[in-house]
Amino acid sequence: MILYLVRHGIAVDRTDPKCPPEAERPLTAKGVQKTRSAALGLEALGAKPDVLISSPYVRAAQTAEIFAEALGSSPEKIRVSEALKPAENPATILNEISRLRAKEVMLVGHAPHLDLLVSHLAGARGPFTSLKKAGVACLEQASGHGRWELRWILTPKLLRDLAD
Amino acid sequence: MILYLVRHGIAVDRTDPKCPPEAERPLTAKGVQKTRSAALGLEALGAKPDVLISSPYVRAAQTAEIFAEALGSSPEKIRVSEALKPAENPATILNEISRLRAKEVMLVGHAPHLDLLVSHLAGARGPFTSLKKAGVACLEQASGHGRWELRWILTPKLLRDLAD
Repeated sequence: MILYLVRHGIAVDRTDPKCPPEAERPLTAKGVQKTRSAALGLEALGAKPDVLISSPYVRAAQTAEIFAEALGSSPEKIRVSEALKPAENPATILNEISRLRAKEVMLVGHAPHLDLLVSHLAGARGPFTSLKKAGVACLEQASGHGRWELRWILTPKLLRDLAD
Repeated sequence: MILYLVRHGIAVDRTDPKCPPEAERPLTAKGVQKTRSAALGLEALGAKPDVLISSPYVRAAQTAEIFAEALGSSPEKIRVSEALKPAENPATILNEISRLRAKEVMLVGHAPHLDLLVSHLAGARGPFTSLKKAGVACLEQASGHGRWELRWILTPKLLRDLAD
């Protein structure tokens, strides 16, 4: 299984007086634009997720929609999981995806939750990555055993450059 | 400090009857070409290592020269360290670079030695990467404390695409 971990794009700042509640903060116009460029980079890399799962928060759901569109996947197919909420234990979403029969899975969520997930999969004691907004990490689990390998990590800038 | 870990390019196969002893295996013509493309990708990313250290093995030394040239650094400045030989403990080279006053350091060596170094820096129990030949991992240590962060990992193909 190949796993793409995508952090949501730039969202309206918490200090903005017009900022809605935490779960409803939307992407900014710049956030939408940068997320789209990053998603096109992932498309250029040939990513074809069979399953897309998003955190229920608005900024993640919007990010998942942008990636689904860029990757030629239907936004209606995006699943929502409470296990991708920022404060969840990374083991919960892993347990969820371990039951899937999918070759490529994309998870759209938050930091440091996704960084904790990377460190959990790598067997590290704590996080050693800081996924950027609209950044992506790609991990692969060889069939037949449980070891995960980190194939690459890309910032949104690198993804954009790959799309050009 | 920013650390670039570079695995040597494709070398003459051990099963080739004309293959010289292990430490002297040179890059193949294809290896030179792919290594150069990867190095140009790293140049496009703005890498400017102050210090380049190579394993003494020929395939690593040649890779270091190609990267030095692409990055506008003088090949004469490449240092050689026994601590980058395949069977060395990763802690040895870390100890060496910890004494450097450099902003960006490039290490050119072997797998799985460099993968062990990544896992050591990430605080993992064992390797969770498989650096490709001419692939590069970039780690950063924030000043003032010892924690290393994995910024990105790139395959030679991605590096080549970034150079275009």
